[in-house]
Amino acid sequence: MSKKVLIVGGVAGGASTAARLRRMDEDAEIIMFERGEYISFANCGLPYYIGGTIKERDALLVQTPEKMKARFNIDVRVKNEVIKIDKEKKEVEVKDLDSGKTYRESYDYLVLSPGSTPLKPPIPGIDSPNIFTLWNIPDTDAIKEYIDTKKPKRAVVVGGGFIGLEMAENLHDRGLDVSIVEMADQVMAPMDYEMAQIIHQHIKSKDVKLHLKDGVKSFEYRSGVTTVTLQSGKTIDADIVMLSIGVRPNSELAKDCGLELNQRGGIKVDGYLKTTDENIFAIGDAIEVTDFVNNKKTMVPLAGPANKQGRIVANNIIGRKEKYKGTQGTSIAKVFDLTVASTGNNEKTLKRLGMEYNKDYKVSITHSKSHAGYYPGAIPMTIKLIFTPKGEVLGAQIVGYDGVDKRIDVIASAIRFGGTIYDLKELELAYAPPYSSAKDPVNMAGFTAENILNGDMDVIQWHELDKIDKDNTIILDIREPEERELGYIEGSINIPLNELRDRLDELDKDKLIVPYCAIGLRAYIATRILVQNGFKVKNLSGGYTTYSCVFC
Amino acid sequence: MSKKVLIVGGVAGGASTAARLRRMDEDAEIIMFERGEYISFANCGLPYYIGGTIKERDALLVQTPEKMKARFNIDVRVKNEVIKIDKEKKEVEVKDLDSGKTYRESYDYLVLSPGSTPLKPPIPGIDSPNIFTLWNIPDTDAIKEYIDTKKPKRAVVVGGGFIGLEMAENLHDRGLDVSIVEMADQVMAPMDYEMAQIIHQHIKSKDVKLHLKDGVKSFEYRSGVTTVTLQSGKTIDADIVMLSIGVRPNSELAKDCGLELNQRGGIKVDGYLKTTDENIFAIGDAIEVTDFVNNKKTMVPLAGPANKQGRIVANNIIGRKEKYKGTQGTSIAKVFDLTVASTGNNEKTLKRLGMEYNKDYKVSITHSKSHAGYYPGAIPMTIKLIFTPKGEVLGAQIVGYDGVDKRIDVIASAIRFGGTIYDLKELELAYAPPYSSAKDPVNMAGFTAENILNGDMDVIQWHELDKIDKDNTIILDIREPEERELGYIEGSINIPLNELRDRLDELDKDKLIVPYCAIGLRAYIATRILVQNGFKVKNLSGGYTTYSCVFC
Ligand SMILES: Cc1cc2nc3c(=O)[nH]c(=O)nc-3n(C[C@H](O)[C@H](O)[C@H](O)COP(=O)(O)OP(=O)(O)OC[C@H]3O[C@@H](n4cnc5c(N)ncnc54)[C@H](O)[C@@H]3O)c2cc1C
Ligand SMILES: Cc1cc2nc3c(=O)[nH]c(=O)nc-3n(C[C@H](O)[C@H](O)[C@H](O)COP(=O)(O)OP(=O)(O)OC[C@H]3O[C@@H](n4cnc5c(N)ncnc54)[C@H](O)[C@@H]3O)c2cc1C
Ligand SMILES: CC(C)(COP(=O)(O)OP(=O)(O)OC[C@H]1O[C@@H](n2cnc3c(N)ncnc32)[C@H](O)[C@@H]1OP(=O)(O)O)[C@@H](O)C(=O)NCCC(=O)NCCS
Ligand SMILES: CC(C)(COP(=O)(O)OP(=O)(O)OC[C@H]1O[C@@H](n2cnc3c(N)ncnc32)[C@H](O)[C@@H]1OP(=O)(O)O)[C@@H](O)C(=O)NCCC(=O)NCCS
Repeated sequence: MSKKVLIVGGVAGGASTAARLRRMDEDAEIIMFERGEYISFANCGLPYYIGGTIKERDALLVQTPEKMKARFNIDVRVKNEVIKIDKEKKEVEVKDLDSGKTYRESYDYLVLSPGSTPLKPPIPGIDSPNIFTLWNIPDTDAIKEYIDTKKPKRAVVVGGGFIGLEMAENLHDRGLDVSIVEMADQVMAPMDYEMAQIIHQHIKSKDVKLHLKDGVKSFEYRSGVTTVTLQSGKTIDADIVMLSIGVRPNSELAKDCGLELNQRGGIKVDGYLKTTDENIFAIGDAIEVTDFVNNKKTMVPLAGPANKQGRIVANNIIGRKEKYKGTQGTSIAKVFDLTVASTGNNEKTLKRLGMEYNKDYKVSITHSKSHAGYYPGAIPMTIKLIFTPKGEVLGAQIVGYDGVDKRIDVIASAIRFGGTIYDLKELELAYAPPYSSAKDPVNMAGFTAENILNGDMDVIQWHELDKIDKDNTIILDIREPEERELGYIEGSINIPLNELRDRLDELDKDKLIVPYCAIGLRAYIATRILVQNGFKVKNLSGGYTTYSCVFC
Repeated sequence: MSKKVLIVGGVAGGASTAARLRRMDEDAEIIMFERGEYISFANCGLPYYIGGTIKERDALLVQTPEKMKARFNIDVRVKNEVIKIDKEKKEVEVKDLDSGKTYRESYDYLVLSPGSTPLKPPIPGIDSPNIFTLWNIPDTDAIKEYIDTKKPKRAVVVGGGFIGLEMAENLHDRGLDVSIVEMADQVMAPMDYEMAQIIHQHIKSKDVKLHLKDGVKSFEYRSGVTTVTLQSGKTIDADIVMLSIGVRPNSELAKDCGLELNQRGGIKVDGYLKTTDENIFAIGDAIEVTDFVNNKKTMVPLAGPANKQGRIVANNIIGRKEKYKGTQGTSIAKVFDLTVASTGNNEKTLKRLGMEYNKDYKVSITHSKSHAGYYPGAIPMTIKLIFTPKGEVLGAQIVGYDGVDKRIDVIASAIRFGGTIYDLKELELAYAPPYSSAKDPVNMAGFTAENILNGDMDVIQWHELDKIDKDNTIILDIREPEERELGYIEGSINIPLNELRDRLDELDKDKLIVPYCAIGLRAYIATRILVQNGFKVKNLSGGYTTYSCVFC
């Protein structure tokens, strides 16, 4: 007998489930409920439509109910909200939002892909008419309409996550004067502090104002202008305000019918994406997943996982047992001209889990060019690699202008395969001058990590610098004098690398030597010379580039 | 006691060995011999300097003897050719090419990185003054000088390998009228025939003439013009001729002193890159390596492997045992606006090894957009994935305009980790609209391969089409009528996908149905509908896009 499958939510996870299920099973009865007016839309493209990069609204609508019917024979019911699940009877209660009528529909399997909703905390004035959140097509239409007709000049974006930054860029593209307000000391939570500094510099270089470590205390709307008052007392006047301070899972339905949730409201699922009920699966933003790297439970609201989970659930429904192996949180965002990407765990996460730098995990920071330096257009990227003392790769963060997406995908793949930094150094990646170097940035990160683990190069991180015993440390700038003129670390002395072998007697063997150069490469060579001459040495990881990002 | 290490060859492999060795061992005596005038130059950049993309000649010189001395304390001897190895005495004989004098130098370890030399077969007229090969700086200077002063208008490039094609592009950039002559039926040997067809079309679209399946019979030079006569009898007049028909390893030295070579003259080495002599290592273009995928011996003259091998040999010399695990032949080239890349084995190689399509290996061809279709600039790339019936990835080839390098590197990494197509579908790659899709092209290739292996979708390759029993096959074009107007497969009938479910009775269940669409995706949906309705079906792999590349 053919199965009857109901799907709640008609976008990333839901529509993917429906399409795969139909391909695998022509006979199943498939009904997809969507409380909104649209299905299968390109959530991730919304900011770019507002900014004008994506010109046609239609481009955002990947599928329509009519097309889903014609191609996949799916009964799509938009403006139909599932308001109750009756697990015992295997039925849902649905409200037709146009007529206001409710009806019931039975199922053999129910798939929940209800997504999440932007947070809107009870800040005074948050419901002002020029304060928006961006999550779906109606939101997009409203924001675009507001900009097109009201022609706001000043925007405040509250929240420096990837959607906030994408909105900041797109509002800036539309000619608005943009300020970003962020409670934390950095934007882009998946990045560690020193990596976020590169983003901060870049954002500021675009004349976007950045208010860090400052939350919103209140909004006050008066004739088209909202005055945003921050915790610090600062006030900013805005003609439009974008709120993007996080999301919460749409799990009320699941909760009400007694499915197990985690503390953050994420629906709990097993390895097969089945909820605590035998006949209900759940996927996407609304579920709790296993962190692929640290094996703890977490939530990762991203489209890639949602789409893949949809396919897996469809397979499980037709009786093929397929496991979802966890989410590593690979993510990427364009932030003006920068690309910001990460995969696996960052240091903040590891510390939260009680792991200690240099004992439980190690870090290397390298700056490598996007492709061969002699071919035009090569631009450096910064790679932060985090790994265990045994070499297992725990995570990576990359910020740069070109080729960042490639390197994060390679490292993300390595993590998926349980790879080590020794694998990274061996990877045989494609090299021709327009694309890479004979030693790719990923290989370089691998080499550097290996040198750290082998004890060939001890490193000191920027955050360890203020703890050093200044009296017993020599900070050694091994760059050329011309480079030093553009800035240097206070208190450092200068011996250019090529003179080092001849000037070793100027250095005190009883002190710790901390050599640095622009990026760490020459200082590594200095490290090797010094170590082999009996000095205690720690190379400044990431060199002056990372140092100056954090401190200057 | 400190070691004395001699290195023959001062470019990719040699200079990398020297640099790493010095970093690891301050005390070693390191002498690097280079018979040419330059060391450490960017071989791979030479065509782009000739073409003008790289403006400064100095950019090609990554290191100079003086800088290698200052930074790495290496005794670099340019214009010094090692002309004999005395294994027993552990000495080499060196000729100082300026003075003509010879001298001997002893060693503890000898490293051979002598590279290779472009082939120049004894074709009549091959020594004409306007016939060039490109391998080093003097070659480059000569070619550039010839173009700058003689202002040739017509160029013939003999050989359609990556250097030939790079030269064709760069000569074309300089305004020359270019013809390529290639003996095989395709350019770019690492690609299989159908993939090369995309390159052929692109080259022709640039008004570069392509003479395939035709070799050079003779050259005849007369007052600045060389008439190139082909085997077919065709003649082409050229003001300049570039020869790039392959290379042979510079292994005479090794051979003369009794080191073991393979049939192609490649120096044999063990897993530690040691030759058949205990104190001699060899690396780079001159050695035989193990194919990482099929475990057979092969030769892969590429810079990435040479550089990495140099580092490994240095490690082995200082007593750290490090293995070189083989070369998978990951390679990439820019061919005008196209990027052409491959990794692992192609079908030609597998066939040569006696493997049979559909029995020993399977193939999927997919066309996916470089990033989300709704974000501007998305362009399709073609991915050919080759895998075993168990799913192990054997190789991949990709041709496209954007994002090709990323996907080949991801698949190259998967191969390195012994990955399967099931891994490819699960890889959690970075997604935001400017960079990828929620299902990355690599995931898509994985899904498609899985569908083939699971039996969800049987496929037929373009080369099987002429073997089908026409009377018992229906070629079913499931595209829209508008698409069909632009070209279709002779003898096919048309039922648009969205009408298929209602028109099944028009199809004969006793016949094999071969559905096709533009790229294979819709035809896969058609396949699933048909199969579940009791039809025998094979989806045309790669769809009309691949078909028309080969046959139109
Ligand atoms: C502006 C923006 C940019 C983004 N950019 C990226 C990016 O670059 N990369 C990335 O990986 N991810 C990005 N995301 C996140 C990504 O879109 C989500 O992770 C993904 O869509 C989640 O899929 P889902 O199926 O869980 O939820 P959704 O795709 O949000 O779909 C859930 C649907 O369920 C409906 N629904 C909820 N409850 C009910 C109910 N009771 N009855 C009927 N229907 C219901 C909702 O109306 C909603 O349409 C972005 C999101 C936004 C908003
Ligand atoms: C035009 C061109 C483009 C290329 N593009 C790419 C590319 O895009 N990607 C890629 O991966 N590879 C590319 N390559 C190939 C790459 O450059 C080689 O694989 C690599 O340089 C091999 O390193 P090697 O050390 O073995 O040899 P080489 O780098 O060639 O160095 C060998 C050196 O040894 C010297 N030598 C030989 N015999 C003696 C002797 N008896 N005494 C003293 N010196 C001696 C030679 O003069 C030579 O300088 C390209 C090559 C060329 C020529
Ligand atoms: C539109 C949507 C319904 C498509 O679902 P889908 O049909 O599973 O996905 P695609 O159109 O990408 O097609 C993928 C299928 O085609 C197959 N395929 C792809 N290229 C192919 C080719 N060349 N030949 C044969 N099959 C191919 C894949 O194997 C896959 O099928 P499978 O899952 O059965 O293995 C769904 O992705 C969606 O709603 N997307 C928009 C919402 C969204 O994701 N938002 C977040 C991101 S902005
Ligand atoms: C120039 C040449 C001598 C350089 O050799 P090299 O010093 O080993 O290579 P690089 O300058 O890239 O430096 C790599 C080293 O720096 C280290 N490094 C890189 N970035 C670093 C950073 N940010 N911090 C610390 N160390 C870093 C790497 O670990 C590596 O050292 P290791 O091998 O000891 O681990 C050699 O590559 C060469 O001759 N190249 C030109 C010829 C050629 O390759 N041609 C073919 C391609 S066109």
